[in-house]
Amino acid sequence: MDKAGGDQGGAEVKAGGQTLLSRLSASSVRPGWTKVSCPCCVSERVEPLVLVKLGEKVGPETKRWLIKLIGAPQTDGGAGLLAHPGEDASGDLIIVSAPRCTLLRATEELGLCKLYRSGDMEAFSYQDRNNFKDSDNMEEFLTLAERQFIVKYELDGLRAQRDLRIPGLLDIYTLQRRDNIWQKLQSAGVTLDTFPLHNTNKLKDLSEAWYSGNQLAQPLDSVNKYFGSPVAFYFSFLGFYTWSLLPPAILGVCITYFSGEVQKEVAESVSGSQVIGSEDDSAPAISGHMLQAVFSMLWSTIFMELWKRRSASLSYRWGTLHLTERFAEPRPGFHGNLGVNPVTGRVEPLFPDWQRELRMALVSLPVVGLFLGLVVLGMMGFYWAEALVQQLNEDWDNMLTQILLIVPSVLHILFTNMLATVYKTVAQSLTEYENHREESAFQNHLTAKVLVFTFINNFAVLFHIAFYKQDVPLLRKRLASLLIFTQIINQVTEVVIPFLVDRFISAPHRTQREDDPQQDKFRNQSSLPPFPGLFAEYIELLVQFGYLSLFSCVFPLTAVLLLLNNLTEIRSDAYKICKLFRKPFFPPVANMGVWQVAFEVLSFVSVVSNCWLLLLSPRLQQMGQENGMSSSNLLLSAVLVEHVLIIVKVIISIVIPDEPDWIRKKREHIEFSSMQALRQQKLQTEES
Amino acid sequence: MDKAGGDQGGAEVKAGGQTLLSRLSASSVRPGWTKVSCPCCVSERVEPLVLVKLGEKVGPETKRWLIKLIGAPQTDGGAGLLAHPGEDASGDLIIVSAPRCTLLRATEELGLCKLYRSGDMEAFSYQDRNNFKDSDNMEEFLTLAERQFIVKYELDGLRAQRDLRIPGLLDIYTLQRRDNIWQKLQSAGVTLDTFPLHNTNKLKDLSEAWYSGNQLAQPLDSVNKYFGSPVAFYFSFLGFYTWSLLPPAILGVCITYFSGEVQKEVAESVSGSQVIGSEDDSAPAISGHMLQAVFSMLWSTIFMELWKRRSASLSYRWGTLHLTERFAEPRPGFHGNLGVNPVTGRVEPLFPDWQRELRMALVSLPVVGLFLGLVVLGMMGFYWAEALVQQLNEDWDNMLTQILLIVPSVLHILFTNMLATVYKTVAQSLTEYENHREESAFQNHLTAKVLVFTFINNFAVLFHIAFYKQDVPLLRKRLASLLIFTQIINQVTEVVIPFLVDRFISAPHRTQREDDPQQDKFRNQSSLPPFPGLFAEYIELLVQFGYLSLFSCVFPLTAVLLLLNNLTEIRSDAYKICKLFRKPFFPPVANMGVWQVAFEVLSFVSVVSNCWLLLLSPRLQQMGQENGMSSSNLLLSAVLVEHVLIIVKVIISIVIPDEPDWIRKKREHIEFSSMQALRQQKLQTEES
Repeated sequence: MDKAGGDQGGAEVKAGGQTLLSRLSASSVRPGWTKVSCPCCVSERVEPLVLVKLGEKVGPETKRWLIKLIGAPQTDGGAGLLAHPGEDASGDLIIVSAPRCTLLRATEELGLCKLYRSGDMEAFSYQDRNNFKDSDNMEEFLTLAERQFIVKYELDGLRAQRDLRIPGLLDIYTLQRRDNIWQKLQSAGVTLDTFPLHNTNKLKDLSEAWYSGNQLAQPLDSVNKYFGSPVAFYFSFLGFYTWSLLPPAILGVCITYFSGEVQKEVAESVSGSQVIGSEDDSAPAISGHMLQAVFSMLWSTIFMELWKRRSASLSYRWGTLHLTERFAEPRPGFHGNLGVNPVTGRVEPLFPDWQRELRMALVSLPVVGLFLGLVVLGMMGFYWAEALVQQLNEDWDNMLTQILLIVPSVLHILFTNMLATVYKTVAQSLTEYENHREESAFQNHLTAKVLVFTFINNFAVLFHIAFYKQDVPLLRKRLASLLIFTQIINQVTEVVIPFLVDRFISAPHRTQREDDPQQDKFRNQSSLPPFPGLFAEYIELLVQFGYLSLFSCVFPLTAVLLLLNNLTEIRSDAYKICKLFRKPFFPPVANMGVWQVAFEVLSFVSVVSNCWLLLLSPRLQQMGQENGMSSSNLLLSAVLVEHVLIIVKVIISIVIPDEPDWIRKKREHIEFSSMQALRQQKLQTEES
Repeated sequence: MDKAGGDQGGAEVKAGGQTLLSRLSASSVRPGWTKVSCPCCVSERVEPLVLVKLGEKVGPETKRWLIKLIGAPQTDGGAGLLAHPGEDASGDLIIVSAPRCTLLRATEELGLCKLYRSGDMEAFSYQDRNNFKDSDNMEEFLTLAERQFIVKYELDGLRAQRDLRIPGLLDIYTLQRRDNIWQKLQSAGVTLDTFPLHNTNKLKDLSEAWYSGNQLAQPLDSVNKYFGSPVAFYFSFLGFYTWSLLPPAILGVCITYFSGEVQKEVAESVSGSQVIGSEDDSAPAISGHMLQAVFSMLWSTIFMELWKRRSASLSYRWGTLHLTERFAEPRPGFHGNLGVNPVTGRVEPLFPDWQRELRMALVSLPVVGLFLGLVVLGMMGFYWAEALVQQLNEDWDNMLTQILLIVPSVLHILFTNMLATVYKTVAQSLTEYENHREESAFQNHLTAKVLVFTFINNFAVLFHIAFYKQDVPLLRKRLASLLIFTQIINQVTEVVIPFLVDRFISAPHRTQREDDPQQDKFRNQSSLPPFPGLFAEYIELLVQFGYLSLFSCVFPLTAVLLLLNNLTEIRSDAYKICKLFRKPFFPPVANMGVWQVAFEVLSFVSVVSNCWLLLLSPRLQQMGQENGMSSSNLLLSAVLVEHVLIIVKVIISIVIPDEPDWIRKKREHIEFSSMQALRQQKLQTEES
């Protein structure tokens, strides 16, 4: 694009740019926006969807060029969107919206399902758009999250159609053919941030329906509409999980009450001291703990199977059951030699699978293994150092050794945190290096890496106590303190601190009045911290679930504590995402991805750990001795029980289908129609 | 169909029926056959495909009616096939062939893939037939097995379009609307047998390429063409399995040789006596058995994963990768209330899934459990009785008690055989009662039921010795005798006896000369016994595989013996199916069905059993004692090893994809094209 072209584009924009900025509200009229390229998309009202924040040093010619690029039709290599230059051509904001045609085409490309005139959800087809409900009203047809994601999707997908110098930038940022423009702009410092805008009215409605009142059910459909399906899946999983905790919680209360252990356990967990010496004497013959353990092992499988069914229904309702990411363009970071994709027949970068697998096997796996090894090493070092200072303290009991006592813990915490930080960067680079074609595959592999590390990091100590030290009382003490204090700390760091920071540090700079110009409101949003993603939320649930399923038999009240925690967690998480952060982009997804697998794996590992813990329990050992069973035979029967439970779990998970019957039928119907259509089409190609 | 109509049809047929029967050979010309209903199917040459043998008492008017029914177009409720009355209208044979149109339409209905002009295998579409290679020459386009199966498929699918009296039969056999005609005819004794005809020339070529010479590879494509994909899958699995036995066989030989146990083991297995007293002394420190066991556990998973990949490639090559049985008409035995199928939109009997599941859970499962219980009970009774007669024999050592010694074994064998016979009938009725919609589902459920029973029946004694008696030497003795003698007995009963019967009892009545009329050759085929199905063949392999994977560590030469056995097994099975039986009907299938699952399950069970056996081995116990490990700790490490191995196996089976990359890409390409075609089609329906 030469200078003349850039100026010309800028001139177009300037004409509108001088209108009042207050018109930029959701009811703003056309002035100020770039022109749409097709007549059907002309509308009175343009909704500001996404805000692009430019670098301070970006010159007006670059901004004009960028606006023109965003507004240019896709056939000319543009994004086919609508751009508004904000205050004027020299301001540091660009507000982006999307015309109808671009939205509809992207809807087809993403494979979203929408309500067809037959009343079913069907994969949207641009050519057949008139048969879809509300396809003339974008604000009804697509959810806010979808519209905003599509804008991001189009911006991310911008590629230089030929070698191109960006006006106002140094020559080193010259674009080569097929370079990803948006990535280049980011690395050149032209765009600092791209984020979706909150819709204040909708947000208010949502928060009222979600966490302000005493409602039992969450407004999941509205959450999906406003934040997108990943957030909605997280919250529906959180809700489903919380209610699923009721049966084990009730059982836990009953067992604790009837076995008369309630006072002791509470006392123990609060005081943190070991009051288990008397346990062996007063205990009844058949342990409630065993009942609890077997119940919770089977419960976890049934829970996960039912969740999968619910997840499939939700995915159908939200139109994400037939996402076609693997047929769409590869994600921006993907690189490879240009070639013809054998599946879609399009020319795009290709990267052989075996090479990716090789990289995973030879690079990622050893590196991840190394870090996991470091975690274990760190733990061993901690135990060694602790034993050492204990010894020192016993030998020379003085002030210095007293202080030394806490050194190992401090060092261990420092080491662990440092390791976690380094690991996150490493995991990111490794996953980049694996060069996944689809964004979802990238995210799943990244999540899986961090997840395994975080999990091991969290559970290493507990596993050490349970399997190596074989010290059930200590495990119980640790578990209780983790359950109670970690949850409190989590809630505080996750919600209270951001809330306080927001209220007393950020908010004073962000006083907002009703008559503020719209643009300032937008600018205010950019001062909020970006949403850190759902990883932290999910890992918290996974760790909880780990406490519950892996070690529940040593502390039957786990489910009760988790139930209480999660009831507040739903509200605090909802508050957090609504109020404390910028609105995040979320792509449409069909399920929880790798998290589902993680929960399932955990549910199987729990059998091993529970059987082991039951075996360790002094009561069982005593019972065995009384009945004249050798410790070998006791172990043998524990192994037998474990195998039977695992087989039962496998059978349960096979017997309960992963999707409800009605969804299976709809899916098969689509397969059948596709097959018929393919036959038909071949014939027509032939005839024409 | 009234009397007049029947006569009219008979008249048509009679005209041709008087031609010489020798013309019925593969090069026969049209006379004698019913007329084809569409002009494109008229051909000089009609290939006799299937023979229908009528009951002796069937009158000529019934035969004429039947011939007319077979020849009538499908729109008039006929089978759309070609029928030849044989000798004359009163003979007891009908020879059936199929015209081009019926074959092609059925090919589409079954979802068979054929070579498209693009060079790929694509699902055949009747309307697009001209773009498929050889679609004008049925003998090239469809395999013999497919053509014959399609004839059976059309005959089985015959349904009365309205209430109908069959000429020459009693009123009780009057057909109601939608009754299955072929089933009714069978129950009325009109048709005694329906079986496909051998093609002598092709059979000769096949047998020469298959088992006559010393070829290493089997002509699998020809087997698929002649007998159909189930047989071809069986033989390719047998071949693949046999070659896969090489690594464990070599390892077994090496271990036996280097550990110097070869003489002892051979002596032991042949003499059947226990020579293990000296084992504990002379054994080396690290047991080859352990190496063998770990190797065979991992080997079995890798073998199954590679087989799945091979199976997918074969299925692609044979055009059975996209079978659409679930979209076709239900199988003849299926019943239910008429309704609209939500998937295909056709009116057909429907039967709710939950009702089938209920029947399986509440009827099939308890009944199967009962029979398994009876097997175990029988075994316990046998041991009890044996102990009793042993005692008696010791107390009064005389002739009578000597004879009594074999009574328990005889009774047990009688009981087991009786039970197996009863169980087969019960399994058949149970599966009928479960009312499966698809033939393949029916077969899989039936096979699974019989399979579990037969397997337990075969292994109950071995498991009893291994897990209850914990007597490794006895297990080794049993295993060796089973391996050697059972294999020999199998080969004898499977091949030698049928061969002798055929040669000396049946064959003299079936002397066949080159100049015999074709019809007599056909009649001769009907005197052969019907092929008993592949169940016996597969269960033999599964039991073998069970010996190998479950107990290989006690007898390292298992793989060698199996390898030798299977090399002859390939040939003898091939000879058997080619020469000793009628040609069987086989539907096209995409894989081994439930057998694949059975082999996989066994491969996982093998980890448990091998770890257990290793633990029992006196050498390990001794090693443990020397190293100061308590039996508990030894058991614990065995459990640990077992868990690690199971996890490794799970990971291997996840990491090795079930289909090769190139097939995945082709499949995804088809999915993509179908999706596109569906969108296109909706639009066109809209426009028209």
